[in-house]
Amino acid sequence: MTIPVQEADYGFKTANDMLEWLAVFGGNEGGGVTRLLYSDTWLEAQHALKGLMQAKGLDVRFDEVGNLFGRRVGVEEPESVILTGSHIDTVINGGKFDGAYGIAASLLAVERLYEQYGPPKRTIDVVSLAEEEGSRFPLTFWGSGWITGLYDLDQAEHIYDQDGISLKDAMEKASFGATSMPSQLKKPKAFVEVHIEQGPILERKKKSIGIVSHIVGQRRYTVQFKGESNHAGTTPMTMRKDAMRLMAEWISFISDEAEAMDSSLVATVGKVSVRPNTSNVIAGETECSLDVRHYNTAVLNQFEEKIKAFEERARHLGMTIIMQRWMNVEPVALDQTMAKSAAEGAGQLGLSYETLVSGAGHDSQVFGNCCPTMLLFVPSRNGISHSPEEWTEPEDLEKGVVLLMKELYKLAYE
Amino acid sequence: MTIPVQEADYGFKTANDMLEWLAVFGGNEGGGVTRLLYSDTWLEAQHALKGLMQAKGLDVRFDEVGNLFGRRVGVEEPESVILTGSHIDTVINGGKFDGAYGIAASLLAVERLYEQYGPPKRTIDVVSLAEEEGSRFPLTFWGSGWITGLYDLDQAEHIYDQDGISLKDAMEKASFGATSMPSQLKKPKAFVEVHIEQGPILERKKKSIGIVSHIVGQRRYTVQFKGESNHAGTTPMTMRKDAMRLMAEWISFISDEAEAMDSSLVATVGKVSVRPNTSNVIAGETECSLDVRHYNTAVLNQFEEKIKAFEERARHLGMTIIMQRWMNVEPVALDQTMAKSAAEGAGQLGLSYETLVSGAGHDSQVFGNCCPTMLLFVPSRNGISHSPEEWTEPEDLEKGVVLLMKELYKLAYE
Repeated sequence: MTIPVQEADYGFKTANDMLEWLAVFGGNEGGGVTRLLYSDTWLEAQHALKGLMQAKGLDVRFDEVGNLFGRRVGVEEPESVILTGSHIDTVINGGKFDGAYGIAASLLAVERLYEQYGPPKRTIDVVSLAEEEGSRFPLTFWGSGWITGLYDLDQAEHIYDQDGISLKDAMEKASFGATSMPSQLKKPKAFVEVHIEQGPILERKKKSIGIVSHIVGQRRYTVQFKGESNHAGTTPMTMRKDAMRLMAEWISFISDEAEAMDSSLVATVGKVSVRPNTSNVIAGETECSLDVRHYNTAVLNQFEEKIKAFEERARHLGMTIIMQRWMNVEPVALDQTMAKSAAEGAGQLGLSYETLVSGAGHDSQVFGNCCPTMLLFVPSRNGISHSPEEWTEPEDLEKGVVLLMKELYKLAYE
Repeated sequence: MTIPVQEADYGFKTANDMLEWLAVFGGNEGGGVTRLLYSDTWLEAQHALKGLMQAKGLDVRFDEVGNLFGRRVGVEEPESVILTGSHIDTVINGGKFDGAYGIAASLLAVERLYEQYGPPKRTIDVVSLAEEEGSRFPLTFWGSGWITGLYDLDQAEHIYDQDGISLKDAMEKASFGATSMPSQLKKPKAFVEVHIEQGPILERKKKSIGIVSHIVGQRRYTVQFKGESNHAGTTPMTMRKDAMRLMAEWISFISDEAEAMDSSLVATVGKVSVRPNTSNVIAGETECSLDVRHYNTAVLNQFEEKIKAFEERARHLGMTIIMQRWMNVEPVALDQTMAKSAAEGAGQLGLSYETLVSGAGHDSQVFGNCCPTMLLFVPSRNGISHSPEEWTEPEDLEKGVVLLMKELYKLAYE
């Protein structure tokens, strides 16, 4: 397969320049970017990055699932691999920073380290991970999950995109799969990722760097409220079993409880449906989503326990609530020693920083279960992500590169 | 036009038997009835009723819009017309009692009065009104509105059903319209309607008869809540502008206020929409309906005033609420003297009764603005209406006929 790769002089000196160049692959009108796993735009972007890595003198390779590695071999402990990077795929009409910034920052940091200090003691692999978002197929972390053994190739046969194409077929069409060269990566010694925050905390607190201590656990529920549909004019308020009113009270209840329980706990009702959803009919049945996140399983349990108490309130009103949990991702604690090192590094560089919890999922949570992992954030303007409006100031991007360089030095050169 | 009319022996002795017969016209599988204005099933039903009225010795006529009258001429004051009846049209897949019961009861009452007392002093017109529900065209009370001068035929040109057929064309296709015989009806001396309650009050209070003092005023609103869409994982609870949470709080607020303000006040949020309506995204914008009813304009004003105060709460949270009223139907007080007479009549007959407010609209509210009007209810099982499950016990139907007979006697024979 011949991949058309856009000409580039590859002489990018900043992450911002590199991101501008990369955003052309899958760039939409209006400034958004769409690179779904194994799509043409995704493939072009990975091959463009391959060209860039080669131009920078790295040893490049794809693994079975299309993760792209650019290696600087260590001269003293070549088998010890420091892995650094992020993911190349995007949501539909996403921004140009999510994922891509971590790859750009890693390439720049590794290049500058080489220019300044020559080859490292330990091997550094810059990785452009195949998939993190779950935008095309109903699974997430395919790239990091493959590397760490969370997934295997058999699974790819039974997962389909919305056009009915299996992950396996899409992968093979992009020239990957079981027949490719086997991955040379062993278990990494460490994983380091920089990423945009995708939230408002750093901007609000006027901090340049976020040092992530935990990635939250996520629980998702579907909640049904069953009352009795009736005439909006002829049924007195006290004789109603209004599923809408019950749901409204419940939304206020769980929101207030979450806010009161722990400042890091978030609970969101983003989706509702109502039957019959007619202005002059009392709703007989309503349903909503509930998304709960915290970095501590005990808090997630406590919250679940707490809100289940509302079932008694519903029974008292002659109605029922059925709460069904359909997702339960455990929280991941990242490496404390590395976080401490990053804090010291930021201090030495004069960068303001905040230790925080990531409320969004990241590749680091997969690596965090397998090797010491560090995740650093840079600020997102207005906290916006997964949108063409996603934006981080170039000087903030640069601060992330500088700190990453310092930390990679400690890991690979000292 | 030849109208196929089902053979019948017309010897119905009860309202229930008459309703069973009438439900065949527009009867659906599953027991529901659909008779939309000027449809074939509607036309068959009106012509079947015409046959029944003729068989009972009434003088029959249709007016311009298809209201059907069956007249027993008064021997002393023939120009004084006591009008009694209800509507023949239904909602889609409605029940067999709504509207039709009032026609059946009137026919039976007039028949029994004639058998017992001969011709009345004053003229009685039993009317099968063309339309009340607003199920086919976006207007209601076409039948009573035509009789009382609320509507004229010009309006029929500019009102369309969902297939783009104008009210005028549909009317003419059914052989009605300006070219028909002009209506002989002058302003009636009184209007008397019996109807099913369509609500739970009589059943709950174990009463046989409802005497309606008022028909509620109705105000309908569309309410928009504007916040800020954001990531459900990365935005702390205190930094959110969650339009869903705001709407939930508002629904609880207006429901609690309505319940506290007046036991006859009802406020219903039956319909909502949410943007983007995605489980892991904080809703940036939500919208809901609000339906408010009470028999007193002052209470409706007071409630509107009260709930507008919530706008301050939204502003305090950095969000906005936009409340738009798009319907305002004034309450109608029915004739107190007639209501008193009905209460006495029920007492004399040993029928338990309750004076109540109708939360649903009825033809009586149109006549109530034009002549002394009485509206009587019989119980609805579980308060259910506009459904194949609509049901009133035959003995309750009979009690309504007996009381109607007594009241018509006072109006037309005394």
